[in-house]
Amino acid sequence: MNYQYLLYSEKEKTGYISLNRPEKRNALSRALLEELTDLLNKIGAEKRVNVVVVKGIGKIFSAGHDLKEVSDGGPQDVLQLFQTCFGTMRAIREMPQPVIAQVHGVATAAGCQLVAACDLAVAAEDALFATPGVKIGLFCTTPAVFLSRNVGRKKALEMLLTGEFMPAKDALVYGLVNRVVPPGELEEATQKLAATIARHSPSAVAVGKRAFYRQLNMEDFQALNYATEVISLNSTTEDAREGIRAFLEKREPEWTGR
Amino acid sequence: MNYQYLLYSEKEKTGYISLNRPEKRNALSRALLEELTDLLNKIGAEKRVNVVVVKGIGKIFSAGHDLKEVSDGGPQDVLQLFQTCFGTMRAIREMPQPVIAQVHGVATAAGCQLVAACDLAVAAEDALFATPGVKIGLFCTTPAVFLSRNVGRKKALEMLLTGEFMPAKDALVYGLVNRVVPPGELEEATQKLAATIARHSPSAVAVGKRAFYRQLNMEDFQALNYATEVISLNSTTEDAREGIRAFLEKREPEWTGR
Amino acid sequence: MNYQYLLYSEKEKTGYISLNRPEKRNALSRALLEELTDLLNKIGAEKRVNVVVVKGIGKIFSAGHDLKEVSDGGPQDVLQLFQTCFGTMRAIREMPQPVIAQVHGVATAAGCQLVAACDLAVAAEDALFATPGVKIGLFCTTPAVFLSRNVGRKKALEMLLTGEFMPAKDALVYGLVNRVVPPGELEEATQKLAATIARHSPSAVAVGKRAFYRQLNMEDFQALNYATEVISLNSTTEDAREGIRAFLEKREPEWTGR
Repeated sequence: MNYQYLLYSEKEKTGYISLNRPEKRNALSRALLEELTDLLNKIGAEKRVNVVVVKGIGKIFSAGHDLKEVSDGGPQDVLQLFQTCFGTMRAIREMPQPVIAQVHGVATAAGCQLVAACDLAVAAEDALFATPGVKIGLFCTTPAVFLSRNVGRKKALEMLLTGEFMPAKDALVYGLVNRVVPPGELEEATQKLAATIARHSPSAVAVGKRAFYRQLNMEDFQALNYATEVISLNSTTEDAREGIRAFLEKREPEWTGR
Repeated sequence: MNYQYLLYSEKEKTGYISLNRPEKRNALSRALLEELTDLLNKIGAEKRVNVVVVKGIGKIFSAGHDLKEVSDGGPQDVLQLFQTCFGTMRAIREMPQPVIAQVHGVATAAGCQLVAACDLAVAAEDALFATPGVKIGLFCTTPAVFLSRNVGRKKALEMLLTGEFMPAKDALVYGLVNRVVPPGELEEATQKLAATIARHSPSAVAVGKRAFYRQLNMEDFQALNYATEVISLNSTTEDAREGIRAFLEKREPEWTGR
Repeated sequence: MNYQYLLYSEKEKTGYISLNRPEKRNALSRALLEELTDLLNKIGAEKRVNVVVVKGIGKIFSAGHDLKEVSDGGPQDVLQLFQTCFGTMRAIREMPQPVIAQVHGVATAAGCQLVAACDLAVAAEDALFATPGVKIGLFCTTPAVFLSRNVGRKKALEMLLTGEFMPAKDALVYGLVNRVVPPGELEEATQKLAATIARHSPSAVAVGKRAFYRQLNMEDFQALNYATEVISLNSTTEDAREGIRAFLEKREPEWTGR
């Protein structure tokens, strides 16, 4: 794989994607987003890794879309840009592996959206989050979708209407990120979280990730009925049978991925 | 405008509505609610201000409905009262400007509902919130709607089933209010929050407020698809073009409201 | 009533159900779940108590399903087990009385699901919560349903994907439990919470509990419209009329349950 705006490496069942446009504050240009979607789809199809981490090269995670693409493009170009971004979010959701955002510096606008759309997030103590589009007359309507599904409506509206920064410690309390650690420990803490997940059965994780999001939008008992079918089927897989046997025999399971 | 139960003033692009029945603990009588709906609709239509603050005159924010209206009225009167209250909540939602509740003292029952239904809320440190209808055999079913959409189901049920007070600091953690400040700073903190929003493009704010609530009830990617259309259209407005230009040229934007 | 895996007693309008399989860490076997559903249905129908508390005998609350039933059963047995569990969750939801989980030690997998599905929960400071199915290849898809409706999606996914314990203090912040107290005060704190609710009109509580969950899955103003009908009807009941009269006359109300 060869990408102009991304770095990619694999280590111990974890894939590490780095947004690599530090001179542009890792702006999510259409070209970068197309590469990111392509890479996520490949990782999802190849299944060589069990978890994916998305992080940024340089001083910050990502400052969001490339404003020049919005200001210079015609209406169809701009629509195409946002639809490309839609595709990236969809790729994160549809791939079988969990995706963890590793956030340092700032994550704003579509950068904040990317954090919110990831399955999990780890942030440095000095990381800052914002949806400041309102300051330039372009309300962060697309970031609002996953932001409001992470932090609740009043906190989301506060960020959207003021454009002000939310510090990492608040992001933790309100549910935008899962862990907040000192900057020097960010890399290690994220790797540790990834390693914890990577040692589980990838097929069980894939089943769980898919079912989790499917049930979220259902009425309570419609969701529980659906989940009942999913877990019953899951229990017949080789990995579940091996996992339960290993547990009862007090040994480590050996996954086959089936 | 001339109201019996409300005071209204405008200052620096912010409209200040004061519930003015201090001798009745700002009870939300049908007459007061009709005035409030009327005023909100006028503010929304006239667009002279960019933000609205709702607060209470006297010792508390509001103690909720006027119980005498519930106890003395026939079934149709009571239904009419609650439908009038519905209309007020709808007016808050449908108007283009964000509405901020400024809460001191207590906000109970429909008073708590009003806080929950506002887009944002600022509270004094000693403010208290409750939905105590259950204590008088009249479960706070209508306040439950926005309360449960602010603080989560277990915390909402706790308030609804016990009728006990939630202190301001918990209201902040659970998402019922956005900021908690010392009582002496309540006025200033609310004005500052309002001023931050009031300096943004009112058309971008209106687009954002409307789209925010519309997408909340959609499935994730239905919501993101809708938001993609909205932000693409928003990006073609004069204010967005001016805002982006100003940002790239490092100057303050000048909004036209288009 | 005579149950093999449960203890049941009533005191001061509160019913206390104890999971009584301490030698199996209160595993939620199919037989236990069938007894629990039966008992909940009886309590709901007989209405001798106004509140129900569910707790565990022995060192922990519950370790979830009995894994031997999952590993030894055929696909139809396993499906039947999970459908039985579905029935228990439905019984908690459909009964008129609020159900409070009293949690000590650990609550894992379906044990954690039981806490999440209860209307309220009180936990000891040293209580731990987890959905560790992923470790044995059996993703906690059914626990995910109510967990994600209590704690938000990122925190729920973290628990589900890592299988790690969430301490009681985090369970409080994220909304899985309502109160956290020192272990020695758990019993008393739960009884106090139950007593607070038990003194209210049982008919108002029943109306409120039912309407609360019904409105949760509706669009905002569809929900408010529904709640408007419910509270208007509620206001015509004897208990509401008595409650309001008592309040205005500054005396304690006397409930008739009508």
